[in-house]
Amino acid sequence: MTIGERSLQKHKEWGGKIEIISRAPVNNKEDLSLAYTPGVAEPCLAIQKNVDDSYIYTRRSNLVAVITDGTAVLGLGDIGPEAGMPVMEGKCVLFKTFGNVDAFPLCIRSKDVDTIVNTIKLIAGSFGGINLEDISAPRCFEIERRLREELDIPVFHDDQHGTAIVTVAAMLNALKICKKNIEDIEVVVNGSGAAGIAVTRLLMSMGMKKVILCDTKGAIYKGRDNLNPEKAMMAEISNLEMKKGTLRDVIKGADVFIGLSGPGMVDEDMVRSMAKDPIIFAMANPIPEIMPDAALAAGAKVVGTGRSDFPNQINNVLAFPGIFRGALDVRASDINDEMKIAAAKAIASLVSDEELCPEYIIPAPFDKRVGPAVAEAVAEAARRTGVARI
Amino acid sequence: MTIGERSLQKHKEWGGKIEIISRAPVNNKEDLSLAYTPGVAEPCLAIQKNVDDSYIYTRRSNLVAVITDGTAVLGLGDIGPEAGMPVMEGKCVLFKTFGNVDAFPLCIRSKDVDTIVNTIKLIAGSFGGINLEDISAPRCFEIERRLREELDIPVFHDDQHGTAIVTVAAMLNALKICKKNIEDIEVVVNGSGAAGIAVTRLLMSMGMKKVILCDTKGAIYKGRDNLNPEKAMMAEISNLEMKKGTLRDVIKGADVFIGLSGPGMVDEDMVRSMAKDPIIFAMANPIPEIMPDAALAAGAKVVGTGRSDFPNQINNVLAFPGIFRGALDVRASDINDEMKIAAAKAIASLVSDEELCPEYIIPAPFDKRVGPAVAEAVAEAARRTGVARI
Repeated sequence: MTIGERSLQKHKEWGGKIEIISRAPVNNKEDLSLAYTPGVAEPCLAIQKNVDDSYIYTRRSNLVAVITDGTAVLGLGDIGPEAGMPVMEGKCVLFKTFGNVDAFPLCIRSKDVDTIVNTIKLIAGSFGGINLEDISAPRCFEIERRLREELDIPVFHDDQHGTAIVTVAAMLNALKICKKNIEDIEVVVNGSGAAGIAVTRLLMSMGMKKVILCDTKGAIYKGRDNLNPEKAMMAEISNLEMKKGTLRDVIKGADVFIGLSGPGMVDEDMVRSMAKDPIIFAMANPIPEIMPDAALAAGAKVVGTGRSDFPNQINNVLAFPGIFRGALDVRASDINDEMKIAAAKAIASLVSDEELCPEYIIPAPFDKRVGPAVAEAVAEAARRTGVARI
Repeated sequence: MTIGERSLQKHKEWGGKIEIISRAPVNNKEDLSLAYTPGVAEPCLAIQKNVDDSYIYTRRSNLVAVITDGTAVLGLGDIGPEAGMPVMEGKCVLFKTFGNVDAFPLCIRSKDVDTIVNTIKLIAGSFGGINLEDISAPRCFEIERRLREELDIPVFHDDQHGTAIVTVAAMLNALKICKKNIEDIEVVVNGSGAAGIAVTRLLMSMGMKKVILCDTKGAIYKGRDNLNPEKAMMAEISNLEMKKGTLRDVIKGADVFIGLSGPGMVDEDMVRSMAKDPIIFAMANPIPEIMPDAALAAGAKVVGTGRSDFPNQINNVLAFPGIFRGALDVRASDINDEMKIAAAKAIASLVSDEELCPEYIIPAPFDKRVGPAVAEAVAEAARRTGVARI
């Protein structure tokens, strides 16, 4: 059986990958009177008096909604809200397993930005945080921006920021190996959807200056045709030299290639055209922009992919469970750039200088140190930046 | 400590009364590839092809949303969405404990009927059923009616129908003791909110003909002032003799009093004015319309209340867990009157003729036979009436 067939079989056996259980025993009248009527009136009244007490008396303190509209699920595209739910449930499993965060999957039957934003706002009182998932660009940008502005609980689009955080973590250690500085490197990012743009922004917020973002039409520069508002905004702050041309043209001389695009976009000649000791993060799934052996043969110094069967798997699961663990622990009102950078640094720091080598720049997904380290760093950054509420 | 103080303390210790756990192990790469990428693409594609497969490959098959707007929480009234959540979580605990139904609590930050209906419709693809809770009348009627029309999953307002079902169950056995027929009895229902109207309707659907519904202004009759649309509709089908006056006036000669109103509305003189061997269900909580000892002293034959410290506790927990268990088991598209009546009869039938007596007309909340008996009867009725989808 293929992995897909086995997964289908397993999903049938599981009958859903999450389950809701009771934390309050109800074995007798006394139990019932405490967990339910008449006793339950007391916590209700406490919350009525002070809404923040919902974090004390309900599960809200540990509860994140994992929400999709089903428009950009895995590499499958717009498959519909219900069809996205196996991924949402999977995400919830990872939240619980790696961060002890209770996560609940929800799909919204609309593709309209206003409708999605309003729906989430209307149910936000039930949750301590919102994780957006698999919502197509550019709608995902506006949805997240508006929710962050209008809600006082953290909102995090994992396809953007989870990817950005783990990419930055891997980058910090790859640059150490190549003895290059983030301020000096020339970077080409191929793919300007949610992930590509978020990766570029986070790297820029850490000091990266020279970066060219590409889409299927080549380099993005100010004034180019076919730019959605998000790409147009990126054209203002990236590729200041206004380089034009295809990916093959602009990759020449670059120190770093970051692929969040599709299979086989990069060949060995393109790697050979880059600067000395190039870093290649070819993260298209399941088939990378270039296979690691080919990239290495063409002179790449460090190669990372999204796959578990090659070294240096750049996997979001390293970030989001600990991010929300930390945010919930201090009841953060937001997940800001400082918290994202702190998470990236925490992940990178788990690879010691002695261990660090081209084949080991980032911890494995099952490294149990990751979740707690990220959570602690994120909580600390939340306190430092004034978004922690306890 | 009072029960309220102890409940508050317990709620703090529990840190929420529900928890979301994983049913899929994720201990290694292989697990990850089955529960998440790349394997998870397969169930996603299966659901894309046939949305009903979401019942096979996600938790939807066992998942009910418990939804409130916080406008009619317990006897506390409009305390706000977040403040209603301890009750919603408690309900979820009862769903799991008594029906093995996974239930998830949600509060909606709106009191607008359209907004509430639309919000629930937008997220309905995540659930196998919707349990509405503690939404004030008369909005609750329209919200439920529209959702039942527009959704293909069961929608059930427990404050209406749960109460109606357990009241009917108790009534069937009380009538046996009093040797009266449902077709012949004269009934007065005090309280014409969600519960009072639903109880009246369900009893009428079982053959009850002579019933007078009262609100704070007395008997409801066709053409009376101060009738909302729901009461006006009830005025068309009840109190056909057009009796007018206060509760004290119209209770004279009645066989049955059903109270879903407030404390102390009925005194011993009123009971004495009723027909021979009257049945009194005084279900106001925590203080009944008349205390059982007073009712019995005044000649009541059978007395039921909502309280656990008197005989014959008429408690919704006897109904909703089994109702949804049965509905989910056959993937019912609706919970119709036949299913409600089947549930009531199943509950009543658990009291054998030998056991039946004025102090024991309805099983206790912790009687483990109730949930499975209700589920089976409901599933059978769903199949019989063509709303079962498997």
